Amino acid sequence: MSSNPSSTVHIDLGDRSYDILIGGGLFDSLESYAAVPRSATALIVTNTTVGPLYAAQLHAALSQRHREVLEVHLPDGEEYKDWQTLNRIFDALLGHGCDRKTVLYALGGGVIGDMTGFAAACYMRGVPFVQVPTTLLAQVDSSVGGKTAVNHPLGKNMIGAFYQPQVVVCDLDTLETLPERELSAGLAEVIKYAPIADAALLDWLEAHIDALLARDRAALTHAIRRSCEIKAQVVGADEREAGLRAILNFGHTFGHAIEAGLGYGEWLHGEAVGCGMVMAADLSARLGLIDAATAQRLTRLIERAKLPVVGPALGADRYIELMRLDKKSEAGEIRFVVIEQLGRAGVRPAPDALVREVIAAHTG
Amino acid sequence: MSSNPSSTVHIDLGDRSYDILIGGGLFDSLESYAAVPRSATALIVTNTTVGPLYAAQLHAALSQRHREVLEVHLPDGEEYKDWQTLNRIFDALLGHGCDRKTVLYALGGGVIGDMTGFAAACYMRGVPFVQVPTTLLAQVDSSVGGKTAVNHPLGKNMIGAFYQPQVVVCDLDTLETLPERELSAGLAEVIKYAPIADAALLDWLEAHIDALLARDRAALTHAIRRSCEIKAQVVGADEREAGLRAILNFGHTFGHAIEAGLGYGEWLHGEAVGCGMVMAADLSARLGLIDAATAQRLTRLIERAKLPVVGPALGADRYIELMRLDKKSEAGEIRFVVIEQLGRAGVRPAPDALVREVIAAHTG
Repeated sequence: MSSNPSSTVHIDLGDRSYDILIGGGLFDSLESYAAVPRSATALIVTNTTVGPLYAAQLHAALSQRHREVLEVHLPDGEEYKDWQTLNRIFDALLGHGCDRKTVLYALGGGVIGDMTGFAAACYMRGVPFVQVPTTLLAQVDSSVGGKTAVNHPLGKNMIGAFYQPQVVVCDLDTLETLPERELSAGLAEVIKYAPIADAALLDWLEAHIDALLARDRAALTHAIRRSCEIKAQVVGADEREAGLRAILNFGHTFGHAIEAGLGYGEWLHGEAVGCGMVMAADLSARLGLIDAATAQRLTRLIERAKLPVVGPALGADRYIELMRLDKKSEAGEIRFVVIEQLGRAGVRPAPDALVREVIAAHTG
Repeated sequence: MSSNPSSTVHIDLGDRSYDILIGGGLFDSLESYAAVPRSATALIVTNTTVGPLYAAQLHAALSQRHREVLEVHLPDGEEYKDWQTLNRIFDALLGHGCDRKTVLYALGGGVIGDMTGFAAACYMRGVPFVQVPTTLLAQVDSSVGGKTAVNHPLGKNMIGAFYQPQVVVCDLDTLETLPERELSAGLAEVIKYAPIADAALLDWLEAHIDALLARDRAALTHAIRRSCEIKAQVVGADEREAGLRAILNFGHTFGHAIEAGLGYGEWLHGEAVGCGMVMAADLSARLGLIDAATAQRLTRLIERAKLPVVGPALGADRYIELMRLDKKSEAGEIRFVVIEQLGRAGVRPAPDALVREVIAAHTG
C-alpha cells in the first residue's frame, strides 16, 4: 500500500533467534517470509473477522512458498480461546495429513497468535510457526516472549507453552481496519512499558498519544519498535519467567481479575490492563514507592488513550479471590507488580488492607 | 520390601539433567525424591488400577516433603489418553489453586506418564514433574527422551511436548503386580534395542528371556538399565528427534498401524510393537539389508517373550493409509526404520510392493 517508516527488531535467542518486521506492505510480501522453512504444506490460522479481510492476500503470497496452503477460520473472541477451538486446528492438520514440517501462520490478534503458537508447540511435539499479528495489542505484546496458551474455565492462559516463532510480521496496513476500541486496548500495553522500564517513553507518549490514536505511521512504528525492544530486553534476561519477566505483568494482576470477574470478552484485555495499571500505580503510591502525582500522571495518559480508569464493582473479596489464582501467586499469596520509581518495577506482596483501599478507590 | 540389585542411570541434558533410579523399595522412600523441589503442593496423577495398589504409600512419603498432597485417579487405558482426561488433571490443579511451583508425580504406566508429563509441560507453561513408572514398558520407554503426549482421534501421540522429569523412579516392587501380558509388552521395547543398537544384547536376551518372564530382579535391573542407557545415547545425540532418534521407532510404524487399525486398547502398545518388529525385520531382509535367518532369530525371541508375531488382517491398503499418518512420514512418503545390520538401524522409504509383501506374509 505504501512505503513507510519500517524497522526490524532482532530477537537474539541463540538457535531460536528471529526478527520482528515492522512497516507497511509486509504481510503479503514474499520477502517477509524468507527465514521460514519452505515446507510442502502450510496452514493459515485466522478468525472470521480478520480472515475475510486478509487471508486471501496472505494465501496468494504463501502459495509461492508452499505447495499446499490450507486455511482454518476460527470464531472470533477471547471466549473461544479454549481447548475446543484449539482442537479445530489439530483437526485441520490431521484431517489433511499434515506432517511435522508443516508451517503454521497465525493471522489475527492475540487470541489467534496464542492459540496458533500453542498448536504449533504441541502438534507432533513441535512444528514451525509464523506470527502475523493484525492488532496493535498483538504486535506489541505477542511479538516477543514466546508465550502461547489457551484459557481454562478457572483461569486465563493457564494451559500453554513457551515457543518461539520463525518471524513476526507487524504490518501497519492491517491496523487500518482495527476498531478504535482495539487500538486503545493496544496502546495500554505500549503505555505499560513507560512506568516499568523507560521514563523517557512516558514523555514521548504524552506528546504523541493523539498521533497514535490518529494511526500516524511514524508514531506507530516507534511505539511498536520501542515496546518490542523493551520487552526483548526484559525477556532476554529471563526467558522462562523466573523473576524479572514478571514486571511485564504490570497492571495484569488487577486486569486479569477484571476480565475473569466479568467473564472473558466483556472488556478487552487491553482495557482491563489499562484500568489495572491505574490500580497498580495507586497501590505503588500507597506503598510509598512513588508519589501520588506520578500515579495521577499515568492515570491521565491512560484516560487520554480512551481506556477505562474505573473497574467494575465486583467487590474486594471477589477481586482478591480471583487475584490469588494469578500465576505470580505463591502458596496463596498474591504478588503485585509495582512501580518502584518511574521507569523501574518490582514484584512484591501487599497488605490486604491496602489492596482493599485501592479496589475501593477505583471501582464502582 | 527387599534390598536388591539397584542402579542409577544419569541422563545428561545440561540444566535439565536427571537420574533414573532402578531397584526395589524405591518409590515410597523419601531419598528417591531428594532432587525434587520442596514445593507447598504436589499432585499425584494415577489411574484406577495402580492407584489403589500404590498411591497411599507414595502419598505418605510425599507428605513429608509437601505440605499438601493431592491425588487424581484417572480411568485406566490407552483409550483415555485424550484431551478430556488430560483436562481432569488441569481441573484438579486449578480447582485446588495450585501454583506454578506445584510438583506433579506420575504414578502408573506409559499413559499416565505421557499425560502427566504433558500436563506438567503445559500447566502455567511448565511445572516440575516426577515419573514413577509402574510397568516395565514405561520403565524402559518413558524414562528417557522427554516425550509427552495425548492421542487425537486421527492419530496416536499427535499432540504433545518434549519435557524432562526431575527424576525417574523405576521400582521393581511395582512390577510384582504387573499382569503377564503387560510384562511381555514391556519386553518388546527391551528387545527393540538389540537389533537397532546392540548385537550383544540379543545374545543376552536369548539367554535370559525366561528369567525376565519369571521377574528375576537381577535380570530385570540389567534389562532396564541397558535399555535406558542405549536410549539415552541415541536421544543425547538428537534431543528434538531430527534424525537419529527415529531409529527408536523400530517396529512402531507397523505397530501404530495395528493399534490405530484395531482401535486403541485392543492390543497393548508393546504387543503391536512386537509384531511390528517382526514386520520391520522382514522388510529389512526383503530390502537385502540382513539375511532371512537374522529376521527369523528376532521373530523367535519375540515369540518366546509371549508376544504376537502375526498382525490383524486389516488389508494392505489400510495399513499403508494408517502408516502414512506416521510422524516420520514426509510429504506423504512413509519412512521405515530398518535394520541395516544387526545392532545398527536406519530410516528409509521402501517400495510399495515390498511393503505389501511384508503385510501379506505377517497378517491373517
